[in-house]
Amino acid sequence: MRRQRSGLIQGIGDDCAVLRVPKGHEVLITTDFSLEGVHFRRDWHPPEVVGHRCLTRGLSDIAAMGGEPRAAFLSLALPPKLQQSWVDRFLEGFLKLAKKFNLPLAGGDTAESPGGVLADIIVLGSVPKGKALLRSGARPGDRLYVTGELGGSAAAIEGLIRGTAKIRPEEYPQHFHPLPRIQVGRILREKNIASAMIDISDGLSTDLAHLCEESGVGAEIRSEAIPRAKVGKEQSEVDLRLALHGGDDYELLFTAPTNKRVPGRIAGVPVTLIGHVTRYKRMVLTQGGARHVLKPQGWEHFRS
Amino acid sequence: MRRQRSGLIQGIGDDCAVLRVPKGHEVLITTDFSLEGVHFRRDWHPPEVVGHRCLTRGLSDIAAMGGEPRAAFLSLALPPKLQQSWVDRFLEGFLKLAKKFNLPLAGGDTAESPGGVLADIIVLGSVPKGKALLRSGARPGDRLYVTGELGGSAAAIEGLIRGTAKIRPEEYPQHFHPLPRIQVGRILREKNIASAMIDISDGLSTDLAHLCEESGVGAEIRSEAIPRAKVGKEQSEVDLRLALHGGDDYELLFTAPTNKRVPGRIAGVPVTLIGHVTRYKRMVLTQGGARHVLKPQGWEHFRS
Repeated sequence: MRRQRSGLIQGIGDDCAVLRVPKGHEVLITTDFSLEGVHFRRDWHPPEVVGHRCLTRGLSDIAAMGGEPRAAFLSLALPPKLQQSWVDRFLEGFLKLAKKFNLPLAGGDTAESPGGVLADIIVLGSVPKGKALLRSGARPGDRLYVTGELGGSAAAIEGLIRGTAKIRPEEYPQHFHPLPRIQVGRILREKNIASAMIDISDGLSTDLAHLCEESGVGAEIRSEAIPRAKVGKEQSEVDLRLALHGGDDYELLFTAPTNKRVPGRIAGVPVTLIGHVTRYKRMVLTQGGARHVLKPQGWEHFRS
Repeated sequence: MRRQRSGLIQGIGDDCAVLRVPKGHEVLITTDFSLEGVHFRRDWHPPEVVGHRCLTRGLSDIAAMGGEPRAAFLSLALPPKLQQSWVDRFLEGFLKLAKKFNLPLAGGDTAESPGGVLADIIVLGSVPKGKALLRSGARPGDRLYVTGELGGSAAAIEGLIRGTAKIRPEEYPQHFHPLPRIQVGRILREKNIASAMIDISDGLSTDLAHLCEESGVGAEIRSEAIPRAKVGKEQSEVDLRLALHGGDDYELLFTAPTNKRVPGRIAGVPVTLIGHVTRYKRMVLTQGGARHVLKPQGWEHFRS
């Protein structure tokens, strides 16, 4: 029963996992489903990609709090006729990403599935007491930033649904290999830069609306400033519509007071100023000289 | 952002829940699926029962560590055509049991289900550092005990599968209203009575095998001593087979050194001596004067 570096005292093999979090830390918990036909399709997504994306969903939530991931738990229900090689490759993708963050797989559950592959990922993390970056900390005047580029994952999904052109995973890494922004979140918290933060899993317009609602503020963003993903063989920029409303990006949206210096790149990831927080509780999109009311129109997961 | 008595700093409404655990405590985590057609059937189980049993699965694992439950998280995927009243009643059963333990529902996930109601319950608990009651602490000579009575839930499932007689929930409370043994687990830990513990969710023979394996020991139990549930209109004792191998009981199986005084009743729950731990790594069942090798034959969840 030796303590591991991760703080894991007892992993798989007892009624519960037992963990220590560092002294003076609070515990973070997030859970996310990855369901076949809802969040992925076996004919679209190689098993490694499904495993990778499953864990990314959980890690991205920890990143959005400025937290340190400490342990992952996977509940996995499998159809009786599923090939073992699919499961092996799923776990390979899952564990490869876990290894990148020294994250132990500390428990979970297994069951027979009544239909399709069903996964629920739970990630436990921690953050120094009172330092979690909540959605509710934005104040009027704060500036609004996003990491990376937006809309790339939604472009891949649109292409897969349309089915007319081949969607090559290597040309759409935002969809097939999204990287949770753990380091960026940690730096924003450690350097006390961000006042509020959320991950863009439902789409910029919807997640900005969440942040505004929790903070009791509004926002104004400039359409020209929104960093659009470059996708496909030509590496062409995605439509503004996808960058605004397409979800599944796992980038971070955060606010920072005007007196904070925000670097243009954090842990190698571009950081872009896209607008500011207002006291009026509505969202506005400016395009050239025009101003439009912006409604949350985030991506709904594709239907099977 | 006021701290609740439970230690919950941030519940539903952010990327993660944020919790504090008491100083000097370790964190316990458990996750359990409750899947329609695998763990329950909508034509057999009223929605309140499904909600109640779903949370019991998680709480029972916390009980088996001697832990205090601190927060619950529910991932719930629902078929698009499910009636809202079913969901309301499911949550009613869930929250009624949660209230009994002052347990906040602190987060989770929701999704559309590709087939059937899919729930994953996560319970976070805590226990003073180094005090978790693991499966691995049993030593040769220790005595073996169980709480409550066994086989009642499996008797209900057999009756439901057979379908010949009406299975009335009030005559099978072990199946329709199992109570997690949180207080018993806590007392066994606080009074330093138990050396190892597990909950009987897979059936006595299977869970005893788990405990023996993790402790590197064997066990001998007396069939006459196993407390059998009384079920049905006649309140007749279930078969030994169901008490031995039927799962889903959510009672506790624990070991205690011979120098510990173990009360016959803890927190109102009967505690029964059923055998002892041996150094030989096998399980033996005695019946009258005869000795049989006992194999794990725990209950496999019914198929849809």
